[in-house]
Amino acid sequence: MFVIGSGARHLEDEMKALGGRILDAEIKRFPDGEKYVRVLGSSEEVTVVQSTFRPQDEHLVEMILLADALRERGARKLRAVVPYFAYSRQDRVTKEGEPVSVRAVMRTLAVYYDELYVFDLHNPETLKFFQGKAVNLSPAGVIADYFGEKLGEGVVLAPDKGALMRAKAVAERLGLEYSHFHKVRVSPTEVRMEPVDVDVKGKNVLIVDDIISTGGTMIRAANLLREMGAEKVFVAATHGVFAEGAIERVSKAVDELAVTNTIPTPVSKISVVPEILKL
Amino acid sequence: MFVIGSGARHLEDEMKALGGRILDAEIKRFPDGEKYVRVLGSSEEVTVVQSTFRPQDEHLVEMILLADALRERGARKLRAVVPYFAYSRQDRVTKEGEPVSVRAVMRTLAVYYDELYVFDLHNPETLKFFQGKAVNLSPAGVIADYFGEKLGEGVVLAPDKGALMRAKAVAERLGLEYSHFHKVRVSPTEVRMEPVDVDVKGKNVLIVDDIISTGGTMIRAANLLREMGAEKVFVAATHGVFAEGAIERVSKAVDELAVTNTIPTPVSKISVVPEILKL
Repeated sequence: MFVIGSGARHLEDEMKALGGRILDAEIKRFPDGEKYVRVLGSSEEVTVVQSTFRPQDEHLVEMILLADALRERGARKLRAVVPYFAYSRQDRVTKEGEPVSVRAVMRTLAVYYDELYVFDLHNPETLKFFQGKAVNLSPAGVIADYFGEKLGEGVVLAPDKGALMRAKAVAERLGLEYSHFHKVRVSPTEVRMEPVDVDVKGKNVLIVDDIISTGGTMIRAANLLREMGAEKVFVAATHGVFAEGAIERVSKAVDELAVTNTIPTPVSKISVVPEILKL
Repeated sequence: MFVIGSGARHLEDEMKALGGRILDAEIKRFPDGEKYVRVLGSSEEVTVVQSTFRPQDEHLVEMILLADALRERGARKLRAVVPYFAYSRQDRVTKEGEPVSVRAVMRTLAVYYDELYVFDLHNPETLKFFQGKAVNLSPAGVIADYFGEKLGEGVVLAPDKGALMRAKAVAERLGLEYSHFHKVRVSPTEVRMEPVDVDVKGKNVLIVDDIISTGGTMIRAANLLREMGAEKVFVAATHGVFAEGAIERVSKAVDELAVTNTIPTPVSKISVVPEILKL
């Protein structure tokens, strides 16, 4: 049985349509701003689906409240499916005195949840902070399904070496070539992207990353690919954490931009619901 | 050493003026809405002061992030001082399927904090949910100090039996009489207040409660006291969780309204800082 948090409402209809059994929940706010939740039913094993995009902290606290309500009603095993995991980019101490925020959130969720499922975590190693079974789900299958025909005999690229595994996972599903760009820091504020080592002339190209925020990297990569003679340039990402105006800027620079619906955005055209229902 | 969260900024100047040693912290927000915290220094034992009024969930998550940063920098013992504790009124399951929200928050804080100090918790029994030393601090001393002279040979009253201990604590400090009103439910939506069993004629009266939200009870009690011939009517509460317009409505009905600064409001004239510094 699934319980849908307010950060996963956009997935509910599709989950139901595909046969997901949903336990209804009432989620509202008291006049003083506190959240009120109530689960309308119970089960021994329950999976709470909650994506933790903005307002991140409200979505997180809601998960704790829902879990407390489910335990109170006798749930023995609680699974958390968190398609977009808040604070995942705060995965290390960059300046002394900073927290490892993703660790703090994982530890907090582990108070109530036995298992954690996320999509394409920024740093999968941080799953170790969750005391319990923790799984990083890949969106490569749904991204490959979405772009496969459009790409034809194209190439899949990562914007940098760190994202290569993501490009590889999509490319292998489609039997295509893959590679990554090199980023060279030319000054403290400027990064130059070097052309890739594969021939993209006349080919369609898909660039894959985990998160798009400003979209600057994607736009630079797309422009470089045009110069190199690429035919169509597509951009895919798991999480559309778009900064103001980023969707428009990236869309203008490429032939198609599509992200998954871990976060609901106007370009969240690729659904992770089928992957959730496999759990 | 103290670290001040963004829900306790209004206490910082007074804490410093009274000799509190503060470890500076940087608290801001990333463009995507996530909180960023950084502690600028460290200590073996640190007390995080954070009141969790609106936005409650952000204040709570901030406490977790601050604690993670402090542990990372080597803090061995962490104390949380939470002057106003969010979700404290959700202390029992009223309708099947609800969480005991205050339990959920206490359990979450216990992941990082060894000790918890709160002021005048709505239901002090719920402190048992915190796995560690948990203390309910009384504002009776600072309330008595503030209203003592104004009250003279007056009477201290609680608006209902449940709040009697609060009135008693203030009255005993001032050597005054105390009692409580009786609330009689006359219909599902209507509660009638019965006159108190002490003579208030010609006397000043202080009504004490833990939380004022709509202020309806306080206004009814004040009107009743006027009918009974009371001289001046004062109202004090620990937490000013005021609904829209409540400060104005209560102020109009009484001679003076004053709450403590566990929540910053225009009538938070009674400071709990001296009590915090005693810890």
